[in-house]
Amino acid sequence: MTMELHGIAASDGIAIAKTYRLESPSLLFDKKTIDDPELEIERLHAALAVSTEELELIKEQAEKQIGPKEAAIFGAHLMVLSDPELIGPISEKINTEKVNAEFALQEVSNMFMEMFAAMDNEYMQERAADIKDVRNRVLAHLLGVKFPNPGLISEKVILLAEDLTPSDTVQFNPKFIQGFVTEIGGRTSHSAILARTLEIPAVVGVKKLMETLADGTLVIIDGIEGKIIADPSPEEIEKYKKRQAEFAAQKKELVSLKDAPTVSSDGFEVELGANIGSPKDAVSALENGAEAIGLFRTEFLYMGRDSFPTEEQQFEIYSEVLKRMGSKPTVVRTLDIGGDKELSYLDLPKELNPFLGLRAIRLCLEMPDLFRTQLRALIRSSVHGNLKIMFPMIATLEEFRQAKQLFLEEQEKMATEGIPFSEKIEVGIMVEIPSTAVMADVFAKEVDFFSIGTNDLIQYTLAADRMNENVAHLYQPFNPAILRMVKMVIDAAHKEGKWAGMCGEMAGEELAVPVLLGLGLDEFSMSASSILKTRSMISGLSKTEMEKHTDHILSLSTAEDVKNYITQMLKK
Amino acid sequence: MTMELHGIAASDGIAIAKTYRLESPSLLFDKKTIDDPELEIERLHAALAVSTEELELIKEQAEKQIGPKEAAIFGAHLMVLSDPELIGPISEKINTEKVNAEFALQEVSNMFMEMFAAMDNEYMQERAADIKDVRNRVLAHLLGVKFPNPGLISEKVILLAEDLTPSDTVQFNPKFIQGFVTEIGGRTSHSAILARTLEIPAVVGVKKLMETLADGTLVIIDGIEGKIIADPSPEEIEKYKKRQAEFAAQKKELVSLKDAPTVSSDGFEVELGANIGSPKDAVSALENGAEAIGLFRTEFLYMGRDSFPTEEQQFEIYSEVLKRMGSKPTVVRTLDIGGDKELSYLDLPKELNPFLGLRAIRLCLEMPDLFRTQLRALIRSSVHGNLKIMFPMIATLEEFRQAKQLFLEEQEKMATEGIPFSEKIEVGIMVEIPSTAVMADVFAKEVDFFSIGTNDLIQYTLAADRMNENVAHLYQPFNPAILRMVKMVIDAAHKEGKWAGMCGEMAGEELAVPVLLGLGLDEFSMSASSILKTRSMISGLSKTEMEKHTDHILSLSTAEDVKNYITQMLKK
Repeated sequence: MTMELHGIAASDGIAIAKTYRLESPSLLFDKKTIDDPELEIERLHAALAVSTEELELIKEQAEKQIGPKEAAIFGAHLMVLSDPELIGPISEKINTEKVNAEFALQEVSNMFMEMFAAMDNEYMQERAADIKDVRNRVLAHLLGVKFPNPGLISEKVILLAEDLTPSDTVQFNPKFIQGFVTEIGGRTSHSAILARTLEIPAVVGVKKLMETLADGTLVIIDGIEGKIIADPSPEEIEKYKKRQAEFAAQKKELVSLKDAPTVSSDGFEVELGANIGSPKDAVSALENGAEAIGLFRTEFLYMGRDSFPTEEQQFEIYSEVLKRMGSKPTVVRTLDIGGDKELSYLDLPKELNPFLGLRAIRLCLEMPDLFRTQLRALIRSSVHGNLKIMFPMIATLEEFRQAKQLFLEEQEKMATEGIPFSEKIEVGIMVEIPSTAVMADVFAKEVDFFSIGTNDLIQYTLAADRMNENVAHLYQPFNPAILRMVKMVIDAAHKEGKWAGMCGEMAGEELAVPVLLGLGLDEFSMSASSILKTRSMISGLSKTEMEKHTDHILSLSTAEDVKNYITQMLKK
Repeated sequence: MTMELHGIAASDGIAIAKTYRLESPSLLFDKKTIDDPELEIERLHAALAVSTEELELIKEQAEKQIGPKEAAIFGAHLMVLSDPELIGPISEKINTEKVNAEFALQEVSNMFMEMFAAMDNEYMQERAADIKDVRNRVLAHLLGVKFPNPGLISEKVILLAEDLTPSDTVQFNPKFIQGFVTEIGGRTSHSAILARTLEIPAVVGVKKLMETLADGTLVIIDGIEGKIIADPSPEEIEKYKKRQAEFAAQKKELVSLKDAPTVSSDGFEVELGANIGSPKDAVSALENGAEAIGLFRTEFLYMGRDSFPTEEQQFEIYSEVLKRMGSKPTVVRTLDIGGDKELSYLDLPKELNPFLGLRAIRLCLEMPDLFRTQLRALIRSSVHGNLKIMFPMIATLEEFRQAKQLFLEEQEKMATEGIPFSEKIEVGIMVEIPSTAVMADVFAKEVDFFSIGTNDLIQYTLAADRMNENVAHLYQPFNPAILRMVKMVIDAAHKEGKWAGMCGEMAGEELAVPVLLGLGLDEFSMSASSILKTRSMISGLSKTEMEKHTDHILSLSTAEDVKNYITQMLKK
């Protein structure tokens, strides 16, 4: 019987396929005395062999799809599987104690796991986790239950899961994974972002999903509306196939905009940039028609390592991105850690309110050597493209002056050393702290550009932690206070002949784009997948028309009033 | 030889007297076998008797000086001293085990302390602390060492201590305690605030104090400059006696301003209010010449209890304050808990960034019953004075409307019930969140008044936790962004014929008052002890003159520039 489930629309598109439940099987078993240890050891070796085969395949596929570095974890798993120090004692235990393979495996691996986990060493603790993963895989084979291997799926399916971990998603092959549905997560959760990057439809936050849908159920998922239809009727399948075709056509039309400029219906041009975190993202930005990188988050260079990246390592990465982007502007944000972003090798003081603490530029100015290394790497890379440097979390003019001073000092040193660099590097700031928005006229005299970071600006302006669901109702992008601040920043920039962009999530929102266009924003930076849609949207908007509404919008009382007004305005 | 020490000037004034070191003595002793248990028991009873005598005296004095409620702790101590269940076993132990009284006392009291401390009951845990206090006192007498009793000091002294606890300061008699100096603490520490309330000079944060100064040293303390002179020369004593007289004369002059209005040199009148936390504070506010209560922090009614105060209990307290203040305006702020202020009986969710979380009005709107109780108590009390109600942490107009709606509903209910109340209660808001400052023009149409809470406004506007010393340099009252926001709020209020006040610490700061006067602030609310000084200061300032500088001040770039400019301006 047909049934509908609802959740949060996390990634556009429609898919029709059978479900594939990605879940951890029950690995419970009883301890047994066995008669024939030889046979039991054979069982063990068979399970080990299947596991090795599986892991080799997964590793190979992961290397192809996501690169050797990310696939390294499966290499570690394979090493565990062939480790005689682990496998030897298991066989021995079966032999001497006459216990079943499951029990022997569990006992021996637990011993190693406990030993490693007790060490005060993160590396060894990770090894404990590897052993656990491998033990579960072998146990599953011994017990004859299905172990989740999304990387080995070789038919078109829609994945169902309570939640997806990065190690699940690392294995996704979009050729087979047509879409996915999860119980947990919101529009900005890791898996939702991934779905948009892979351009597969996804619905998240579907309550009781795993209780409701069995493996192999035919479902339609509608990632536009956030709907799942299980066991659809032939009519429904027909209807959704039509929609699917429409969606594809629309998408194709968008693709035709890939190399077009971004121009409003009355002929005003703006720039659409992408927010990226790695050189790989730059490729997808260009594929999605980005005219610029509006935000390159460099903190990802510093994460998942055990020491600071060297100048040389950074230089390589920045150069790679700049070369890819060619003459297109590339705005690199200097290190933004602290707050909720930690580095395992940097011991920061625990703070009561980390979002109001020592983070981003504050931390870089406290640790000038760290900062100078990044600045040097950036300045050196500038010969390879159109580099712009941006400082995050600037609250006072002194901070900008200090940071700029360090930049100038490094540039001067390089000139003396004869190291080549571009003379035209623009140096600007993120506007994400209320004081800086209010003082934008003063800042505009000294910075080369502004980029408004709405995520933080909203949280500070309304004093509401954007990660805290107790105050989620106060996280209001459309609060008129935010729009007034945006106007202050844009007007201040233009008065001094500078440009103003936005790299917060707001820059790609359907209701926000018309207002931002009317306010005169020069550059919109967003996730790559939103660029073409936004270009299409802007081509249908008249900037002159939007300008006429801004004064009225800024005089409205509440976020609700603003959203209603814009909705009405767009209907006309 | 004369020696100078330096610290933080915590409370104005000059004192010259011998030092009295307030310190916990060493209570170490050896276990001994004794020959004559009778004699040992006599020693015990002698020590108990002296302790009882002391505690009775302290209790009596504390009752006189600070009231029976606060002195109750000494009653509890006396009960411990006369408890046969405790004293009996000590004598018995001496008798049967032939051990010295110190050892028997320690063993028995430790047993009780451990027993009480282990109970999962705050009351019993406090009893453990009482026993410890009493045990230490009796031990000190047994050992013949001095036990700190600031309440029993009967000669003029200057107290020296590493730090002062509330139970020390509860005993202070300003007739004898001429001043104090501590190693720990800042201008806003508990002891510094107390010194200003008692109007005795104090210097805090003096490094190595206890290592340096012996008991009975003649010292001069200068609470204006934050200086201590030990073993002063006769000339220095003469010089400081003269300064002391000047200070007294100045103070007397200030006292003459007690009942005067607050008028600038060119005839503009403003209102000076006090920030208070209890009905008792209202007395001291009036004594210090307050023309209003600009902020009554009601959270103290909710603290140090084990359940919410009832409507009746709140009604009593609000009525008491309103009666004391008579026709003078009394602005009561509704409950502001959450953030760093917790209630033991209210289980709030742990938040990653409590300052950006569920606090103050946000919490009250989530718990409307709690809020309605406070509103009812306030409305009922309104017949006793000139009540104004103020909501804290308002970020959006919806929040104000919701809170006001609850107020109106309760008022309507009371009208139906025939309960009398004033028809003229003004309902206003704190402006302490950037969005509200930026939207002040819209708010001004609906609220009756604004009171700018600079402490929070600064921390949110600059995204710097005011309790976090890592970012203390970013907590800038004189950042032009703050002054611009203050101007937005005042201008918005005046445009709608409303008044604007300020109840943050800035309202009483020497460099801030001239600017605030120039910006047109109507009401300045501060700690009571700053009122007369501020009145005197304003009488010497021309508002018209100050107004001429405001545009220039608001165009400056940094907090440093602003402070330098004001300093120069005041010198002219």
